[in-house]
Amino acid sequence: MTTVYATIDKPTLLLDAMRAKRNIMRMAAKAQRNRLRFRPHFKTHQSASIGEWFRSAGVQAITVSSVAMAHYFAAHGWDDITIAFPVNLREIAAIDALAARLRLHLLVENLAAIDVLASRLTAPVAIWIEVDAGYRRSGVAWDDDATLLALAERIAACERMALQGLLTHDGGAYAARTHSAIADSYTTTVNRLNHARNLLAKHSFSGLEISIGDTPACSVLDDFVLVDELRPGNFVFYDWMQVEIGACTWDDVATVVACPVVGIHPERNDVILYGGAVHLSKESLRRADGSLSFGAVVFLEEGGWSAPLSGAWVRSISQEHGIVHAEDAAFAELASRLEVGGLLGIVPVHSCLTADLLKHYLTLEGATLTMAPIPPAVT
Amino acid sequence: MTTVYATIDKPTLLLDAMRAKRNIMRMAAKAQRNRLRFRPHFKTHQSASIGEWFRSAGVQAITVSSVAMAHYFAAHGWDDITIAFPVNLREIAAIDALAARLRLHLLVENLAAIDVLASRLTAPVAIWIEVDAGYRRSGVAWDDDATLLALAERIAACERMALQGLLTHDGGAYAARTHSAIADSYTTTVNRLNHARNLLAKHSFSGLEISIGDTPACSVLDDFVLVDELRPGNFVFYDWMQVEIGACTWDDVATVVACPVVGIHPERNDVILYGGAVHLSKESLRRADGSLSFGAVVFLEEGGWSAPLSGAWVRSISQEHGIVHAEDAAFAELASRLEVGGLLGIVPVHSCLTADLLKHYLTLEGATLTMAPIPPAVT
Repeated sequence: MTTVYATIDKPTLLLDAMRAKRNIMRMAAKAQRNRLRFRPHFKTHQSASIGEWFRSAGVQAITVSSVAMAHYFAAHGWDDITIAFPVNLREIAAIDALAARLRLHLLVENLAAIDVLASRLTAPVAIWIEVDAGYRRSGVAWDDDATLLALAERIAACERMALQGLLTHDGGAYAARTHSAIADSYTTTVNRLNHARNLLAKHSFSGLEISIGDTPACSVLDDFVLVDELRPGNFVFYDWMQVEIGACTWDDVATVVACPVVGIHPERNDVILYGGAVHLSKESLRRADGSLSFGAVVFLEEGGWSAPLSGAWVRSISQEHGIVHAEDAAFAELASRLEVGGLLGIVPVHSCLTADLLKHYLTLEGATLTMAPIPPAVT
Repeated sequence: MTTVYATIDKPTLLLDAMRAKRNIMRMAAKAQRNRLRFRPHFKTHQSASIGEWFRSAGVQAITVSSVAMAHYFAAHGWDDITIAFPVNLREIAAIDALAARLRLHLLVENLAAIDVLASRLTAPVAIWIEVDAGYRRSGVAWDDDATLLALAERIAACERMALQGLLTHDGGAYAARTHSAIADSYTTTVNRLNHARNLLAKHSFSGLEISIGDTPACSVLDDFVLVDELRPGNFVFYDWMQVEIGACTWDDVATVVACPVVGIHPERNDVILYGGAVHLSKESLRRADGSLSFGAVVFLEEGGWSAPLSGAWVRSISQEHGIVHAEDAAFAELASRLEVGGLLGIVPVHSCLTADLLKHYLTLEGATLTMAPIPPAVT
């Protein structure tokens, strides 16, 4: 066991920097091959240090999910940032301050936001109309021609707003479990965005770009017709959900939570971990028998961690407890390799939420990387 | 709308201090009436300021869920603390430092932990055997006589460890939906702990206490036979889950997340909120139709918030987005009272996880209360 593990005394997010850098290089190369702008979403890692790994791969433009995150990365030298969330008008002053110092891209999905931006912005911004291609989260419905046109016209009337294109997040891709399902979801999404682009082109809004963001499509597809920009985020670490979707292999997963073992119960094939909902999040996957799982189980080993232990999973989670359950053979292996006071690795279901909770990374080389601070309640 | 709401620019945990203090006073009075030790669990609020409200109600002994939390409250003058989590042997040095400065209570559920404590502790501690009364989280099975006895004997052999009693958390009570189901769960739990106590008494371990902790039983029951200590935590704020269980009314719920409105979609009866899984957590309740809900909807009003809006709920949640869906009448009310740039209140499903995520409270009087800092990855 490497000495870095010996320093761990509470649930800790381990980061395999080599895998993360490989994930970054692979996605950057794919974007370059397709002559697309690669604008990775930094909400997954939220770390200036990891941001530098992207810069080394040639990345110049980034995506974030909040105004506070934009300010954090701006302070670390990023000057071309998309806030991929419908404009929060209550932060208009902070947004305007960003617009004054860098190339800021904003998402709009309603007229009210455009009107406030038009009256309050003092610096230029690039505007993307957020399009709902069927996911029903935020955005204008892709076939709502009247609203799309009304938004484009209102934007065009504002001196400080330049309409850049149409942006979507294909959340539907996360329901896919095969490459062909991911490809189908992508095709549907892009065709719908292209419908909206063609509509606007017919009304003199030409040259609009299309930006997509989901990690499954960006990971699995090789060719991206009709698209101008890729904004995946999760791929830097991947996680169990992405393995389930088929977007990556276990060897691509770059983060694992090292959890202290506080109990071993052979009478019920359970291992009790210090590692609960405030560390892993309550994100879950449904097992074949209908029960939920909150993480996959790996052994920490010299230089990293093992493949997942088949027949073992986090069956239950509360604020600080994680309960690993195992079938007999898997439990026998757990019992033979673990002791109370040892460590077990849990592959998170959703690494974005886990990273957001743990706020620090410990690399396999023993370096601690920090993350954007939590903004205060009221600024 | 009170001016305090005008200062909110991002998802913010509002705290009705009057309700929280009322919840504290009521529980403290109930414990006193029953002549029980009231040792509230501070993992729910994690705030030194809120801790002072408990002190004003006569509380002297507290419960926490981690060693870091124990150090935080020790620094704020608390000197009788139970860490209600199976001893994490990797933090033995920090545990021993606590034991040297205050009256520290630890939970054990296996011999391995006792042996390490025996060899490493330099200061005295009170020990509780954690008993699993059927919840199957951590703890010795209530009817595993051999293990219970072995633990008690090993503890008795250690000079610095004094066996104080038997402790359990009745997680099963959270599945109850009626007062009688809560009472039944309590009776079963306490009878099982009493079985274990009687067993140990027969083997010369006399005078052991019983400590229980679940908010449903502590809230609903008036008489607590056989029990010596109450450790509820959630009751200080309550939440939607506790309303569902029947442990409180909506008027008892003391926290709501104020979420900026970033979109309103009449075509699908949805309101898009800035307020997602990194603010509310992914804790959910199952609706009658089988779908999930991630929060109840209230309007922010002068001096607090409204009753929940019937027919509206958070239907979907992602990292930063919350999607409120409403039936027609409820949506009409939402649409008439909200605008993009306004605020909507969400009652969290599980206030402990929401507070842990947001890290600050904003009282209705405009005060910001802070919480224990996040411990670093490696100390």
